[in-house]
Amino acid sequence: MPSGVPWTLPITLDVARSEITNVRNGDTVLLTCEESDFLAFLKIEDIYCFDKNELTEHVYGTTSTEHPGVVKTNAMKERRLGGKIDLIRGSKVDYDDVLLRPDDTRKLFEANGWKTVVGFQTRNAPHLGHEYLQRLALSFFDGLFINPVLGKKKKGDYRDEVILDSYKALLANYLNKNKVALGVLRTEMRYAGPREAIFHATVRKNFGCTHFMVGRDHAGVGTFYGPYAAQEIFKNYPDLEITPVLFREVAYCNKCKSLVCDGVCSHSAEEQTKFSATMLRKIILSKDQPPEELMRPEVFEAIKKIENPFVT
Amino acid sequence: MPSGVPWTLPITLDVARSEITNVRNGDTVLLTCEESDFLAFLKIEDIYCFDKNELTEHVYGTTSTEHPGVVKTNAMKERRLGGKIDLIRGSKVDYDDVLLRPDDTRKLFEANGWKTVVGFQTRNAPHLGHEYLQRLALSFFDGLFINPVLGKKKKGDYRDEVILDSYKALLANYLNKNKVALGVLRTEMRYAGPREAIFHATVRKNFGCTHFMVGRDHAGVGTFYGPYAAQEIFKNYPDLEITPVLFREVAYCNKCKSLVCDGVCSHSAEEQTKFSATMLRKIILSKDQPPEELMRPEVFEAIKKIENPFVT
Repeated sequence: MPSGVPWTLPITLDVARSEITNVRNGDTVLLTCEESDFLAFLKIEDIYCFDKNELTEHVYGTTSTEHPGVVKTNAMKERRLGGKIDLIRGSKVDYDDVLLRPDDTRKLFEANGWKTVVGFQTRNAPHLGHEYLQRLALSFFDGLFINPVLGKKKKGDYRDEVILDSYKALLANYLNKNKVALGVLRTEMRYAGPREAIFHATVRKNFGCTHFMVGRDHAGVGTFYGPYAAQEIFKNYPDLEITPVLFREVAYCNKCKSLVCDGVCSHSAEEQTKFSATMLRKIILSKDQPPEELMRPEVFEAIKKIENPFVT
Repeated sequence: MPSGVPWTLPITLDVARSEITNVRNGDTVLLTCEESDFLAFLKIEDIYCFDKNELTEHVYGTTSTEHPGVVKTNAMKERRLGGKIDLIRGSKVDYDDVLLRPDDTRKLFEANGWKTVVGFQTRNAPHLGHEYLQRLALSFFDGLFINPVLGKKKKGDYRDEVILDSYKALLANYLNKNKVALGVLRTEMRYAGPREAIFHATVRKNFGCTHFMVGRDHAGVGTFYGPYAAQEIFKNYPDLEITPVLFREVAYCNKCKSLVCDGVCSHSAEEQTKFSATMLRKIILSKDQPPEELMRPEVFEAIKKIENPFVT
């Protein structure tokens, strides 16, 4: 931003020309959404056009319509409104029982006496690779904030209730609940890779986290970003006020007889089983119990109860 | 130290009165030792007495003769010599092939491109709990410097060659040699707990490490120190210029079916197998293969080849 604040993803209000024929700078308009008739007031300071190709090139590094973020941008309306927002009341949301707002989490972390808290971003049901990373984090930090993204996703991603129910099963059976907080983040995935990693970290700073985990191809899609581009970008943001905790891909090593981050042991890829999203999706759809080194039975049971676990 | 440099363990040259009858301040004396007739010159600036009880109370927190550090101090001769030392040549040492001096390690870490290097102190043959911690470290840091202490130890501790051979077996079979350096540190264990942890960290800073691992009862003996006293003391030394990496005790959890640091999972002590030094010593002396969740077979084979693995 011109002020020097790092802000890597524009979050904007797009409107059609026809919707704003009577609107002028200085006007105050009421914002509504599906879930709320009284969301916020917007005092308009700016009505402007934008170049979609320039935006997608900057944010996503591509104008390819194979990229879901590009498709979404291209489908936006042609004008934008900017200005000061006064929230009237937050929209009523699903999953209220696991919604923690930044004000809540900051109080919670303090009440728990957590001086260091690692934020864990996810849009998946937890497999043992995720759990392994959470265990690594819990070994060194006071608290872990598991913060799944609920909201619009792409085809083949886990549905919101699958992510939540499977995490509840993991917490009920394996991780120390006194060191873990689970709260959902309602935002769209943009699949902007590196820039979205910075955005995700910034959001977790707002929640009160001191650290944020960034793994292989964070918030990536297809092969648009280098596998560790979302880690490297943090070098350009030394003033983010949240420390990235970088880790490499996790696999199960048949020689070590344990999970392992890439590069830790001396064994080759042939001796290891990677966590393939495609393979796990297949196993889950087949309703067969996944191998125990890939997914906890309790987690699988929670997923199995939901009829269509994936976004179609 | 008066200069402000943190230095928590006195390393001094004690002499008997009868040995220094002809020695005055300003004299230069030749220092020799078992392994070298020309170790160093000492230009004497100070000849002084010291109060053994005051020293042991300060350094070890006790004057109890149950403490091996107290026993050692009480056996020291009654005078000390201080002054500037000029090394003539380092004494020839055993295990030359795994001796790395600070100058060597700094060059090695740089040549390897390691920006972050964790120092790992040990006086044991590696069991899976140690390896687990090394894996945690390797997951987040560029390099790991395994730096076993060779030298005088107490009864029941592993003998030097056992520590070395077992680590060589671990590195040959499990950890990524490109991310691990093994070098020995020749110093006596003092069992001074917290103060020795600061000393150990300072020594590893000198080797070029950026981080240093400190676990439960680091450099402790019996029940002289609180289990995490050696971690808490680091709060008093914020300017140490090496970052402690604190972790809790590791156990094998039968419910998680994996190794786990204390507090990470929700399962009780009854569901976990702790690493007991006494139990491992018994198993090793019995020459029976230890359970595979406690010790790697290759490590056990290396130990088994040595007739008397423990200091008697």
